[in-house]
Amino acid sequence: MKILIKNAWILTMNDQMEQFEHGYLVVEDTKILEVGAMDSLPQDVKYDKCMDAKRAILLPGMVNTHTHIGMIPFRSLGDDYPDRLRRFLFPLENECMNEQLAYTSGKYAIAEMQLAGVTAFFDMYYFEQQLAEAAEEMHSRALLAETVIDSVTVDVAEPMGGLQYAERFLPKWQGHSMVQASVAPHAPYSNTIEVLQQVDKLSLKYKVPWMMHVSEMDFEMAKYRDQHNQTPIEFLEKIGVLSSRLVAAHCIHLSDHDIELLKKYDVKVAHCIGANTKSAKGVARVRDLLAAGVTVGLGTDGPSSGNTLDLFSQMRLFANFHKTYLQDRSAFPAEEIVKLATIEGAKVLGMQEHIGSIEVGKQADFILVETDSVNMFPIFDAYSALVYSANASNVSDVFIAGKQVVTNKELVNFNVTQLRAELAEAMEQCGFKSKALEAMEGK
Amino acid sequence: MKILIKNAWILTMNDQMEQFEHGYLVVEDTKILEVGAMDSLPQDVKYDKCMDAKRAILLPGMVNTHTHIGMIPFRSLGDDYPDRLRRFLFPLENECMNEQLAYTSGKYAIAEMQLAGVTAFFDMYYFEQQLAEAAEEMHSRALLAETVIDSVTVDVAEPMGGLQYAERFLPKWQGHSMVQASVAPHAPYSNTIEVLQQVDKLSLKYKVPWMMHVSEMDFEMAKYRDQHNQTPIEFLEKIGVLSSRLVAAHCIHLSDHDIELLKKYDVKVAHCIGANTKSAKGVARVRDLLAAGVTVGLGTDGPSSGNTLDLFSQMRLFANFHKTYLQDRSAFPAEEIVKLATIEGAKVLGMQEHIGSIEVGKQADFILVETDSVNMFPIFDAYSALVYSANASNVSDVFIAGKQVVTNKELVNFNVTQLRAELAEAMEQCGFKSKALEAMEGK
Repeated sequence: MKILIKNAWILTMNDQMEQFEHGYLVVEDTKILEVGAMDSLPQDVKYDKCMDAKRAILLPGMVNTHTHIGMIPFRSLGDDYPDRLRRFLFPLENECMNEQLAYTSGKYAIAEMQLAGVTAFFDMYYFEQQLAEAAEEMHSRALLAETVIDSVTVDVAEPMGGLQYAERFLPKWQGHSMVQASVAPHAPYSNTIEVLQQVDKLSLKYKVPWMMHVSEMDFEMAKYRDQHNQTPIEFLEKIGVLSSRLVAAHCIHLSDHDIELLKKYDVKVAHCIGANTKSAKGVARVRDLLAAGVTVGLGTDGPSSGNTLDLFSQMRLFANFHKTYLQDRSAFPAEEIVKLATIEGAKVLGMQEHIGSIEVGKQADFILVETDSVNMFPIFDAYSALVYSANASNVSDVFIAGKQVVTNKELVNFNVTQLRAELAEAMEQCGFKSKALEAMEGK
Repeated sequence: MKILIKNAWILTMNDQMEQFEHGYLVVEDTKILEVGAMDSLPQDVKYDKCMDAKRAILLPGMVNTHTHIGMIPFRSLGDDYPDRLRRFLFPLENECMNEQLAYTSGKYAIAEMQLAGVTAFFDMYYFEQQLAEAAEEMHSRALLAETVIDSVTVDVAEPMGGLQYAERFLPKWQGHSMVQASVAPHAPYSNTIEVLQQVDKLSLKYKVPWMMHVSEMDFEMAKYRDQHNQTPIEFLEKIGVLSSRLVAAHCIHLSDHDIELLKKYDVKVAHCIGANTKSAKGVARVRDLLAAGVTVGLGTDGPSSGNTLDLFSQMRLFANFHKTYLQDRSAFPAEEIVKLATIEGAKVLGMQEHIGSIEVGKQADFILVETDSVNMFPIFDAYSALVYSANASNVSDVFIAGKQVVTNKELVNFNVTQLRAELAEAMEQCGFKSKALEAMEGK
């Protein structure tokens, strides 16, 4: 099966940041077979399918490095409340979250990401077995990590039970071409040293990255300072769990020494600018991280923290926040930001050999961003157009492993109305909606 | 002519912030005749047209308080260059900008704003006569202000010639129901005291607001401090030009005394969070302005400064920036931000008696934001959905003065492809495109 896509403005995101302003791409089965300029397109070749991109921007599928896809039901609930976690999130999660709700939310979230050009993501939540099934069903590339925390949760009956869950979960998905199972201690402060060390060993055994919220909360920083005279990252080094397999989400509060440690152990960082600034937590030192050689990708966080699951909203917020914090309008030119959303995100997930750039032999995970909409003219710089003008609704076509999952802004094999109805039904059945409305009325 | 819109989630934005979660609206000719809950909809009335909103959010048309609609050609050009003004903007403007380019750009920009739910705006540029004609033709509500600056410009042969232009321009549009002509000194530092005083008198004579960039630039603050031991706003008070007719754009750098003066004279502020932070200039003290009782609206600035002309992008940036700067996640709840984009914007333009809220007797300027798209579920709070989840592409229908200008995400009387072709043709004819590419190659 050979597919030709012609007349695209191709951003390869390869090491040379090569562009083909009038380019073509050939996909064979799951892989990229050719990429080049239109005037070098062979004339005598037959293709099974030919698609005119009509000057759309073609780039690698975006990588969302930090999500909680089971949490769609919480979106728009209690956004601006200082006590949002205790008043809305924890009680509703404890009372209502179940297998079916997580699964239908996961499918919905994956649909939303695919429609927005996200082709791979790293998730952390509960019921990750169901979420892995959702990812497989939706043909998304994904890392799904079961949460480990020092309390009883919605899917395990013992504190830290997520670890045993993960011990069963990880082997199940071994060798799968698209979906990997993983494990995610919630945070350093909500787990024991032993559990963190066991998680690290598990990740080593199954050769899969693991994820944890790190250096995100003010109380977290105070706790490690007061109790250990350390930062959380210094503490994690001491207990021996820093490695290239750790994806540290947030990292808002970093010392110079923390940045050295992240580089030394090749820890990856999932930077969630939208969620971090909506919650007024602060702006991570991304320029310093990159200058030190640390790998950084972009993440949306969950739909109840960041509300959107697309990386266009993150790229725009990233540009404006980092330029303003650095007091430098030329800091982070648009092409560097598109790198973070694509090839650098692929590195965070440990998938850079297979995805993240448009190169011959790589997996055919790529997206088209149409340039017909009114906000997309003129385009003197395609990176600028993506970062400063585009929004998620400009994504027109999405391919994952050579298979088209979005065509002309619609899902190929699923229907949003149907997915929404299934999620709404799950929200009804567990009483989520009525309990949410009650919590709102208790203002 | 009576139009019924039913099954909408209506945000009236009236003083009581009344909502009708299941609401209806009746339009008669240019005005709002009725608004209420679906269960109070009279059953025996006949309408000329009936529209099912299908649970879309219905709110007042948004007001963009600071634009440069003639500048679409500059979008995505030199965004991240420190010397962008001198290298790209000024030379290209001087060499290429002409009547036809401004006019076609203006029409395109108005189309873009209407498709994004902006129904009124306050513009500052050159060739404002042509831009006023564009606004009239597109049936937009607009204030168009001719720039006055101490240099020869693309449309006047003498420094400060914009003042004479304005003296001819303002009377031409007197009494027009939708389009008002105005005048905009570029900035305090680029005009003489006499010119600023004449502008103020002109605005008084024709009872129309005027606009100026104020307290935007670091060098501006330094100049007034060093030469006058004053802030720009203190200087403007001294020369007697502060009044409720002045719309001060940006106001990034404000002292406590400045804020007192803005309140004392009822000066309005056009806050451009997107452009201000993309250019790393800083974040204006909006909470302090509002606490002092100053009227503040949102503006996008020009497409070469902010890239987007819609207020969804501004609302999202506003929320995240102000919460983070105030270190308070509960600062500026979403409903306050939607106020700034609607009724407060109307006050900035001096149009609050006619637009900015859904109230019986007001002009029927309103928009529908569809809730069918994947990013718009669930909605526990319609304001949250607008600020944190929605994007400009969710706007489905737009009415201005009772006339529908956007239906099902398309312009009713115009065609974007055609408007783009006309603008592209004007860009070709004046050599804009080739000169822009030359400037880029000179990196």
